[in-house]
Amino acid sequence: MRIDSRKNDQIRHTKITRNYTKYAEGSVLIEAGDTKVICTASIEDKVPPFLKGKGEGWITCEYNMIPRSTKVRKIRDINRGKIDGRTMEIQRIIGRALRSVVDLKSIGEKTIWIDCDVIQADGGTRTASISGAFIALVDAVNKLHKQTPFNIYPIRDFVGAISVGIVGNVKMLDLCYEEDSKANVDMNVVMTDSGEFIEIQGTGEEKPFSKQDLSELLLLAEQGIKHVIQIQKESLKMDSLWIGTGERK
Amino acid sequence: MRIDSRKNDQIRHTKITRNYTKYAEGSVLIEAGDTKVICTASIEDKVPPFLKGKGEGWITCEYNMIPRSTKVRKIRDINRGKIDGRTMEIQRIIGRALRSVVDLKSIGEKTIWIDCDVIQADGGTRTASISGAFIALVDAVNKLHKQTPFNIYPIRDFVGAISVGIVGNVKMLDLCYEEDSKANVDMNVVMTDSGEFIEIQGTGEEKPFSKQDLSELLLLAEQGIKHVIQIQKESLKMDSLWIGTGERK
Amino acid sequence: MRIDSRKNDQIRHTKITRNYTKYAEGSVLIEAGDTKVICTASIEDKVPPFLKGKGEGWITCEYNMIPRSTKVRKIRDINRGKIDGRTMEIQRIIGRALRSVVDLKSIGEKTIWIDCDVIQADGGTRTASISGAFIALVDAVNKLHKQTPFNIYPIRDFVGAISVGIVGNVKMLDLCYEEDSKANVDMNVVMTDSGEFIEIQGTGEEKPFSKQDLSELLLLAEQGIKHVIQIQKESLKMDSLWIGTGERK
Amino acid sequence: MRIDSRKNDQIRHTKITRNYTKYAEGSVLIEAGDTKVICTASIEDKVPPFLKGKGEGWITCEYNMIPRSTKVRKIRDINRGKIDGRTMEIQRIIGRALRSVVDLKSIGEKTIWIDCDVIQADGGTRTASISGAFIALVDAVNKLHKQTPFNIYPIRDFVGAISVGIVGNVKMLDLCYEEDSKANVDMNVVMTDSGEFIEIQGTGEEKPFSKQDLSELLLLAEQGIKHVIQIQKESLKMDSLWIGTGERK
Amino acid sequence: MRIDSRKNDQIRHTKITRNYTKYAEGSVLIEAGDTKVICTASIEDKVPPFLKGKGEGWITCEYNMIPRSTKVRKIRDINRGKIDGRTMEIQRIIGRALRSVVDLKSIGEKTIWIDCDVIQADGGTRTASISGAFIALVDAVNKLHKQTPFNIYPIRDFVGAISVGIVGNVKMLDLCYEEDSKANVDMNVVMTDSGEFIEIQGTGEEKPFSKQDLSELLLLAEQGIKHVIQIQKESLKMDSLWIGTGERK
Amino acid sequence: MRIDSRKNDQIRHTKITRNYTKYAEGSVLIEAGDTKVICTASIEDKVPPFLKGKGEGWITCEYNMIPRSTKVRKIRDINRGKIDGRTMEIQRIIGRALRSVVDLKSIGEKTIWIDCDVIQADGGTRTASISGAFIALVDAVNKLHKQTPFNIYPIRDFVGAISVGIVGNVKMLDLCYEEDSKANVDMNVVMTDSGEFIEIQGTGEEKPFSKQDLSELLLLAEQGIKHVIQIQKESLKMDSLWIGTGERK
Repeated sequence: MRIDSRKNDQIRHTKITRNYTKYAEGSVLIEAGDTKVICTASIEDKVPPFLKGKGEGWITCEYNMIPRSTKVRKIRDINRGKIDGRTMEIQRIIGRALRSVVDLKSIGEKTIWIDCDVIQADGGTRTASISGAFIALVDAVNKLHKQTPFNIYPIRDFVGAISVGIVGNVKMLDLCYEEDSKANVDMNVVMTDSGEFIEIQGTGEEKPFSKQDLSELLLLAEQGIKHVIQIQKESLKMDSLWIGTGERK
Repeated sequence: MRIDSRKNDQIRHTKITRNYTKYAEGSVLIEAGDTKVICTASIEDKVPPFLKGKGEGWITCEYNMIPRSTKVRKIRDINRGKIDGRTMEIQRIIGRALRSVVDLKSIGEKTIWIDCDVIQADGGTRTASISGAFIALVDAVNKLHKQTPFNIYPIRDFVGAISVGIVGNVKMLDLCYEEDSKANVDMNVVMTDSGEFIEIQGTGEEKPFSKQDLSELLLLAEQGIKHVIQIQKESLKMDSLWIGTGERK
Repeated sequence: MRIDSRKNDQIRHTKITRNYTKYAEGSVLIEAGDTKVICTASIEDKVPPFLKGKGEGWITCEYNMIPRSTKVRKIRDINRGKIDGRTMEIQRIIGRALRSVVDLKSIGEKTIWIDCDVIQADGGTRTASISGAFIALVDAVNKLHKQTPFNIYPIRDFVGAISVGIVGNVKMLDLCYEEDSKANVDMNVVMTDSGEFIEIQGTGEEKPFSKQDLSELLLLAEQGIKHVIQIQKESLKMDSLWIGTGERK
Repeated sequence: MRIDSRKNDQIRHTKITRNYTKYAEGSVLIEAGDTKVICTASIEDKVPPFLKGKGEGWITCEYNMIPRSTKVRKIRDINRGKIDGRTMEIQRIIGRALRSVVDLKSIGEKTIWIDCDVIQADGGTRTASISGAFIALVDAVNKLHKQTPFNIYPIRDFVGAISVGIVGNVKMLDLCYEEDSKANVDMNVVMTDSGEFIEIQGTGEEKPFSKQDLSELLLLAEQGIKHVIQIQKESLKMDSLWIGTGERK
Repeated sequence: MRIDSRKNDQIRHTKITRNYTKYAEGSVLIEAGDTKVICTASIEDKVPPFLKGKGEGWITCEYNMIPRSTKVRKIRDINRGKIDGRTMEIQRIIGRALRSVVDLKSIGEKTIWIDCDVIQADGGTRTASISGAFIALVDAVNKLHKQTPFNIYPIRDFVGAISVGIVGNVKMLDLCYEEDSKANVDMNVVMTDSGEFIEIQGTGEEKPFSKQDLSELLLLAEQGIKHVIQIQKESLKMDSLWIGTGERK
Repeated sequence: MRIDSRKNDQIRHTKITRNYTKYAEGSVLIEAGDTKVICTASIEDKVPPFLKGKGEGWITCEYNMIPRSTKVRKIRDINRGKIDGRTMEIQRIIGRALRSVVDLKSIGEKTIWIDCDVIQADGGTRTASISGAFIALVDAVNKLHKQTPFNIYPIRDFVGAISVGIVGNVKMLDLCYEEDSKANVDMNVVMTDSGEFIEIQGTGEEKPFSKQDLSELLLLAEQGIKHVIQIQKESLKMDSLWIGTGERK
């Protein structure tokens, strides 16, 4: 049995609180076990230089951990003088995951800033960030849609994410920090509600893994993401109706 | 009447939640109206270079706002490339305020890191940070004291802080953001439970102020800080017993 | 008696040399005892982004110490990689102090850059900077006024600054470095010629202070600032005639 | 047919030149079509702080492109002020890939620095870097082994890497830049000679992909990596004999 | 005899390979003994701010060494946080040398970026960079000239560079690294084909030098540069015909 | 006649004020016409890492201009984020010039920091810095020598510096800013009292120059430096007696 008494194919208790802070267009607290992340979506009426004049929007993501979200206090980026590679990797994957289900042309020349600030880290912060940021994004997009309906509602599908890994020789779903730090193989998977992959990042730094391992891990991940998307749907309720409809004015 | 229906000499609803996150030695969420700050105290077994070998401890503070704690999204320091002057000023005042009531020699060669991360900002974040960080500090110090009692219990007095200002021609206590942005005179006051000043920072950038104004503002501040310290005491209850006793082993 | 034989309520020998360097619109060397600061005022025909198009001007300040202005050589900011917090605090207070007596609308879309470069530091560099920078500012404004008279002459009042503190149990005016480093309470005060406060920054990091202490310190400061403003007037002579007149074309 | 007349399951002409420069312990030029990367391995007799005193070695990687390796001149990192996220991601994957087949304990307290400097970029620079850096690493390790034989020869297996993707609806092996920029799905795969996965990074930013797609892409990748490892073996010849033997003194 | 068997007045084997990489408008590999530098010239359709609207062009240079171009691995600038002084000096001298023979008005509002990336360093990298970059520049300028002929062909003369020095008491031409590191006097000379000086940088950090020494060193340099320019002419062949003609449309 | 009525072979009025500030071991104000530089020498009891344990000392130099030392306000390095190339070049040449006449072994494991802070710039700041810094260096070395005599007095010779140039077709000595900005050829020369060269930096960016030009410029420079060294000797008087004696205990 796992250290927190879960089964190997069971995700942690996951909870999504919408409207967590008052200024952002979308603001969510996601809790996955002891991992807690504030995800906000902010809308800005301009796009980065490479998109100017193309009539398209953009979604960009920043990820950060407050210093004592971790066991050992983490020095702030500004005092280390740079963003570390892990943070870079994470904010890039969150951005790609969300952009993959959004019709950026439909949004027009706007940037949606996604900020994921980890308050407490117990493994799986990047996947929790994706799952939580998706809801903040939906709330921000709906706020726009209610003001001035989009020609085509821009969100095409749900996006959920989860980690899987091999700890000892056991394949496990949704690793907490202690499991993650002992894992031989570590994989983050992002999928849509329609069961397709958006991103797979698997690494066997400690030990290479076989095709059979890969298949089993992806099955576990699929099962976990289904559960996560169900929790997303419950949190959004009626506010999820437009997703995937491509509704037109 | 004020925009949130308070009297001019009334502080906002203020709430202190201890043990807000699980890793830090002291961890507090302080809410003052819509201002919300996570304050943590972390203990490190070394001191900055200028104190090495002197047998004394140190308390240092860092302050930050998450990007969407404010109406307009605030760019992260690491992306602007530097800490702004306001943040510098604030982290210096928090550090001074806490050090002023702590016997650093009694602590020994340890650094206590205070981190104040603003989740939602509606005015008075620096004074809320001081009032909340004090409780996180007490919890961290008590954790040390319970493991290995200090020769002299190092915290000498309570520390509370509040802002006062002149809005229009009216002197007000504990300004919210909207009031603060219209204030002619803006003053932050830090006091002990015994009624002495630790820090006064008053500025009449918009309009100089008279001695009479100063007296009245300080009276308002004193009254507000008494209320804040009462809330601190209620939150600590029995855990405040050592404060100011200089208890010896 | 004090280490330099002054009385407790006596300022150091203070001297203002105008037109100290040849390029700046205003250029002053201020000497307060052994503290020496070059203060220049430079005019630029644009404003920071947050003021563009508002028809208002801005005054901004930068403060720096040359490396061997201090007993121990101070590493240059560019080699430490950042401006330290103390410098930030100082340049913010100088800027606020000067802006408080200037009608920025009258100046129009111009920025006045105040540079305070400390050549020799013996305590009180921030207050000397304010008192000296004020004269550089007047010279720069008068140069503009002589070319193209302002509708309303923009400088409303004199600004002087001084430090006070409690050393041992003695309250002293205009602390030199040796006194400052032993002070329990340290206060910087900025006032106008009309006797109103622009800024009060008092800190009892070593020891809190009472209301009675505060009153006495402010009286000392007021007396010192009167003396400083008298020296400013003598240095400006006829060039001070417009100050506070709000003269119109 | 593909723009360079290859079949969909065919890698580009790939060539490895050993001892390309004279100072590095291992130095390789790898050419994959028009992509050209200089890979060097440098040995340093110390380890990063987190490994000090543990008796283990470390492999770390840096990746860079010379400014005109690309169609549009790329600004140097030092002039942009930071390493971009893509570069961070790439140097992390190269490091992980090489560490996964090396017994770091056997190496002892040494760091092997891998530098991949792209001279000309036409797609697949990260996978070419891994395949080339592996040879530089072998040369550097062999140089150490010849001087003072390791107890256990530290390299456990060959490592090769290739990209695959879906362009239009066609699955292709080893994408050149033009193909890559039109791909809907983009995947980088790192494998050992024994046919196990070290890293899979697949992203469907433009369009999610199915399990079936994933299977077919991984088959293509496996086939390509076999070819790459064959080229590696031919370039090393007798110098590859120790790999995977765990030879002991 | 010298360590590589050359005579004191003999340059190293020098080879220029044009069109070394495929994207740059001009791209050269220059080899001088074991010193190898990739020099590219890139054309950008804008000028730096100080030239905007003046109808003139600009030539700017960046110089860098890949980490293992040297005996001891050189840390990348981005990881040290700044460009070192030596690199600054070198890129400034290369820029000045090339600008001195180019009619910048004739080029129009274009910037030509010269990038010199050292692959292998064995002394004389700055002079090799100048000699190689000149050829890259000619190729880039000719590419423009063939598309749209300049009113006046902008390159007025050839530019070659070489180092000379005093090693022991012996004056030597084109020092390799080992000679350079033992030299008392070190001089870099840049000249035109017409025998005039563009730049002389001589330093006797280890030992001052006399006028007589200077004369002899300059004679050696002149002889070496003549040889270098001959090699440049052979590499350019017919493509050098326009140089110095000031040909008009 | 020149703009300031000098003859072509005449240096500007040059004045050296010793003990200009009170903390530095050596502190000089040098004025050359309207160019004014504060030069200090500070002694530190350690050496840079590359010299540790070698029993040798080091001299290092930093150069800076206060923002309004120039006609147009110069942005501080810390606000531009980096030291500009010109500054780098200048601080390197000052350091080399001073080290060339000092027996670093005799100094022992000490660093002498030379700081040249330009208060007013009217051309020739780098040569004035060298000539002034030499005197600050002598004062600092003498202070050490008087406390604990060196085995060998470490300063071997005087060092003076001056600029020369070709303006129009006229060769001129000690160019002021207006002359310098029109010069076709610009040369900085550093020499010893014994008439040998330490550094020659000549550049014909605007127009190459002939051997004949070079000879005449060097003659002018020699004449100017003789004058500068005479002024140095007068300023040092008896304090110059040890220079070049290699006096032993």
